[in-house]
Amino acid sequence: MKLAIVGLGKMGSQIAIRLQESGHKVIGCDVGEASRQRAEASGIHTAAERETAVKWFGDERPVVWIMIPAGAVAGELQAWLDVLPADSVIIDGGNSDFRDTKKHAELAGSHNVQFVDVGTSGGIMGITEGFSMMVGGDEPTVTSLDPILDSLSQPHGAHHYFGPHGAGHYVKMVHNAIEYGMMESLAEGYHILHDGPYAGLDLAAIAEVWRHGSIINSELNNLAAAAFRDNPELSGVDGYVAESGEARWTLEVAKEHDMELPAIQSALDVRLASQSGKISFATKLLAELRNKFGGHAINKT
Amino acid sequence: MKLAIVGLGKMGSQIAIRLQESGHKVIGCDVGEASRQRAEASGIHTAAERETAVKWFGDERPVVWIMIPAGAVAGELQAWLDVLPADSVIIDGGNSDFRDTKKHAELAGSHNVQFVDVGTSGGIMGITEGFSMMVGGDEPTVTSLDPILDSLSQPHGAHHYFGPHGAGHYVKMVHNAIEYGMMESLAEGYHILHDGPYAGLDLAAIAEVWRHGSIINSELNNLAAAAFRDNPELSGVDGYVAESGEARWTLEVAKEHDMELPAIQSALDVRLASQSGKISFATKLLAELRNKFGGHAINKT
Repeated sequence: MKLAIVGLGKMGSQIAIRLQESGHKVIGCDVGEASRQRAEASGIHTAAERETAVKWFGDERPVVWIMIPAGAVAGELQAWLDVLPADSVIIDGGNSDFRDTKKHAELAGSHNVQFVDVGTSGGIMGITEGFSMMVGGDEPTVTSLDPILDSLSQPHGAHHYFGPHGAGHYVKMVHNAIEYGMMESLAEGYHILHDGPYAGLDLAAIAEVWRHGSIINSELNNLAAAAFRDNPELSGVDGYVAESGEARWTLEVAKEHDMELPAIQSALDVRLASQSGKISFATKLLAELRNKFGGHAINKT
Repeated sequence: MKLAIVGLGKMGSQIAIRLQESGHKVIGCDVGEASRQRAEASGIHTAAERETAVKWFGDERPVVWIMIPAGAVAGELQAWLDVLPADSVIIDGGNSDFRDTKKHAELAGSHNVQFVDVGTSGGIMGITEGFSMMVGGDEPTVTSLDPILDSLSQPHGAHHYFGPHGAGHYVKMVHNAIEYGMMESLAEGYHILHDGPYAGLDLAAIAEVWRHGSIINSELNNLAAAAFRDNPELSGVDGYVAESGEARWTLEVAKEHDMELPAIQSALDVRLASQSGKISFATKLLAELRNKFGGHAINKT
């Protein structure tokens, strides 16, 4: 298939390269000249102007995959709706709030453009291992995107259609909220192993033995094992942990539906407190894990 | 090696069978006639009296693996110390409080008997997949047990020596506390997927897509996937969740060391509240997961 990838950052550029290697025809779009140059150096044809990308599709239906921070999606969507012909498809592959996604789908629909939400997990490992993708939108449109989703899920990922507009981002939001809670639980455990009554426990060896046959064997613990192998004391990690919205949104929805999610709440609270300087070995590990899976900056500065 | 397995319950009997199949010489001990008969039916030689088991070792050093509930270990230990010769080894393979383990090791030491603590994760899957074992005690004694630990870790498990008496149970205690927090996080997520704004989401499909390339891919989510495949609405699960001590003990240690573990605390609180009737789809999933990995009863009655 032909498609445009909008946003040639860490994830977008790698998705572009991967899809091109899988035989799809890709054009990369980014307002940043440096990002475009990096993509061109990797063999990705790029465009600075949206109109150029639209023309590039020729007779084929334009499909635009937006991979940018959630806060920038509304503006980017409007700009594309100004130039795309009817029956085009816009995919939001980022971590947008599903409530915004429903509005975006409505706006796109008023231009006769289909909006599809793809929640994408796997982080930087997903580029080689295949992504885990949660999809919402109009079902026939989503089905028409299978060639792209199949390519991105190879070799060990998967994709699944979960329902109407926003359903993909909703499932991905909850996924990330679970991720917050699981990471916090792991970080608390390693904290008390590190600072508890048995001094000098070998955390790398502990993480390694848990990778083999234990009930808490998990991708997150695999990343902890890698973190402790590389840096047993997490030296140089200041312990500030960013929050990217998904747990906060999940807790808002929970409140509306009169549900308590105390572990997820505590994970968010710990991150917020870290931003006010309440750091510990646990928050250092959280920052280090986020770096391992997402390439997020370890330190505040 | 020759060893006695004390406690022919779910785990003990399977460990006995596994070790015998690996070429070790095993005798099973249990006060319960029914348990002994079940073990005999599986080809395990058993004894009702401890003295019979001690004699069975002949010239070899007696090694006794105790696999019983934590609360029963002190009495069982004393009874074995009354009949074992000096230089025997007693292994506590259960989920004992590491603070008790230190006392038990001291008591055994006063009889010139070595006490070894083996925290054993893997649940009922561990019987076929291999256990993840965390070991504490006198290092040369632990090393002498390698043939047994190697057999029990085959094919996908592992064992590791973490230090003096209690270190194995300490690491296992923290492992289980992490397990509480991770399970609670997963359960909260599936709860809001089930009872949130998108009605009728296919939880089995969600769990399945997360098994492929997502950051929360984990043994616990594998079990959730199996649970939702078998019983999407968790029908017939009353949502009462037992707590077995490890999270509570971990929180006691955290308090002594002036550490906060809010996710683990919330996981314990939710279980305790479930026992007073505060149940939800989340606590039903917790009960179901405990049944899947530990064979624990789903319902209170």
